Amino acid sequence: MTSRPATSPRFLGLAVAQMGPVHLSDSRESVVARLVDMLRQAHSRGAEFVTFPELALTTFFPRYWMSEEEAHERFFERSMPGPATQPLFDEARRLGVGFYLGYAELTEDGRGFNSAVIVGRDGSIAGRYRKIHLPGHSEHKPEAPFQHLEKKFFEVGDLGFRAFDTDGVRMGMCLCNDRRWPETYRVMALQGAEVVVLGYNTPSLNIHWNEPVHLRTTTHLISLQANAYQNGIWVAAAAKCGSEDGHHMIGSSVIVAPSGEIVARTVSEEDEVICVRADLALGAHFREHVFNFAKHRRPEHYRLIVERTGAGDPLP
Amino acid sequence: MTSRPATSPRFLGLAVAQMGPVHLSDSRESVVARLVDMLRQAHSRGAEFVTFPELALTTFFPRYWMSEEEAHERFFERSMPGPATQPLFDEARRLGVGFYLGYAELTEDGRGFNSAVIVGRDGSIAGRYRKIHLPGHSEHKPEAPFQHLEKKFFEVGDLGFRAFDTDGVRMGMCLCNDRRWPETYRVMALQGAEVVVLGYNTPSLNIHWNEPVHLRTTTHLISLQANAYQNGIWVAAAAKCGSEDGHHMIGSSVIVAPSGEIVARTVSEEDEVICVRADLALGAHFREHVFNFAKHRRPEHYRLIVERTGAGDPLP
Repeated sequence: MTSRPATSPRFLGLAVAQMGPVHLSDSRESVVARLVDMLRQAHSRGAEFVTFPELALTTFFPRYWMSEEEAHERFFERSMPGPATQPLFDEARRLGVGFYLGYAELTEDGRGFNSAVIVGRDGSIAGRYRKIHLPGHSEHKPEAPFQHLEKKFFEVGDLGFRAFDTDGVRMGMCLCNDRRWPETYRVMALQGAEVVVLGYNTPSLNIHWNEPVHLRTTTHLISLQANAYQNGIWVAAAAKCGSEDGHHMIGSSVIVAPSGEIVARTVSEEDEVICVRADLALGAHFREHVFNFAKHRRPEHYRLIVERTGAGDPLP
Repeated sequence: MTSRPATSPRFLGLAVAQMGPVHLSDSRESVVARLVDMLRQAHSRGAEFVTFPELALTTFFPRYWMSEEEAHERFFERSMPGPATQPLFDEARRLGVGFYLGYAELTEDGRGFNSAVIVGRDGSIAGRYRKIHLPGHSEHKPEAPFQHLEKKFFEVGDLGFRAFDTDGVRMGMCLCNDRRWPETYRVMALQGAEVVVLGYNTPSLNIHWNEPVHLRTTTHLISLQANAYQNGIWVAAAAKCGSEDGHHMIGSSVIVAPSGEIVARTVSEEDEVICVRADLALGAHFREHVFNFAKHRRPEHYRLIVERTGAGDPLP
């Protein structure tokens, strides 16, 4: 990647369109109408790119036990865009606004992925991602207050973490739980990503242990802040939040600068747009000095990161 | 590493002994007397392990341009313990307290490292570390208000990031700038580290660009918090701080829980001890669920972390 002089600002109108709940009874068409409304609002406030949530078109269905077939029928998309989502792509092209959208992808050969696309200002798909860090479990836990069946309904993503050149910006993306894993951001920063966008659905209750509820939001924020800083990138994170048919999820959608500072944050658990004028050159200060990877990284001492999956004994 | 039931608390009295300035005119003996005082205070408050700063025995000398020979003569240790530091080792053994200490190491064959040791409660050295992420530069910058010559005075550490079993606790360590690199903590967590201790000297001014001063502290804290959380470990970080002969460095020494929360923080820029009763079992909740590495990590998608040093083009 060519080094740009850190003193020449280069602005991107960057927005997050947080969503309130999507209930089981809500139609795809009604959801897409909400997305189109927020796209227009973001555009009117100067946005050139809008970040929508993970699994934005439906309720967070991995909380329900059901067969794969039933899930595919009710909650997955067989094409993107498809009949229900075409109006969003059309309006984005008309306005000249790019966007990121998370959805459940069903491939032609019947495989399910938790996926996202980055769409350019011309309405064409510039990048695809399939979620790699799938949380939760695959077996039924009848004793739990709800399920977290991402390991049942989705295969591990097979497209890697990639950066894409889109409308003059090098962007990367991920989904939800990926944001808590530092490898996610580092692999994209090593491809010169300047902005990472992501959506999430984060239940307020941890079904595995008695985790204090406030930690869900605290750990969400510090993960985004530290990884934005440690890679010299902008991070935009969009929640689907509030109570979906009685199941509450956290909000606190944010835009984080390469300084690690939260520069915009939602205040509601409803549909809400936040937007900033992001100076992409700010990240260059960090990437040229404290995080000049070429000067300071020492991969010969990082090998365990790829040589081990789980934790093991101390090195001899 | 054997999985321990997350419900059985396992406590460690964990302390940080922050240091105020060490001036050029201060003798090694006077500095060691300060360390011994803080060791006693920490022990009286229940500490079983005390974390001292980086380069704890001298001023932060990489800010001064001088020859390697002069630096070796004035600021490096030829043995650890040596005549000046033996009283600290003796007092630690007498009290039955372990500690971490950073110092400039001169090897028998004349190589310089920015080093640290972990010393067990029996007074013997349980682990050694030589700093890997050396910040700064090696050439003279006469236009800068001060130098940051770590790349001149120190070689890149050759011992890797390791975890050591010390008095029933698996500990790792690093130094200063290492704490801003997520690879540091991950490599030690993949060896089952439960606690990572570190010292730092962080100038309040960035000589490379006009970085807002408050960011030095903000980015220090979010780096520690996110990496503690993302690895399910306790982190104890000890500053040398305040104004050394007119050169100011940040304080804000902290102890961070595996939840990412700051559970103790200094309030001064002087010698100051903070101490907590750290439940090592708290980290097990995180390592068994959200950060169950064996279940959730996908090293096949992390390869760029070791295959590239600097940032390059997007993957094809």
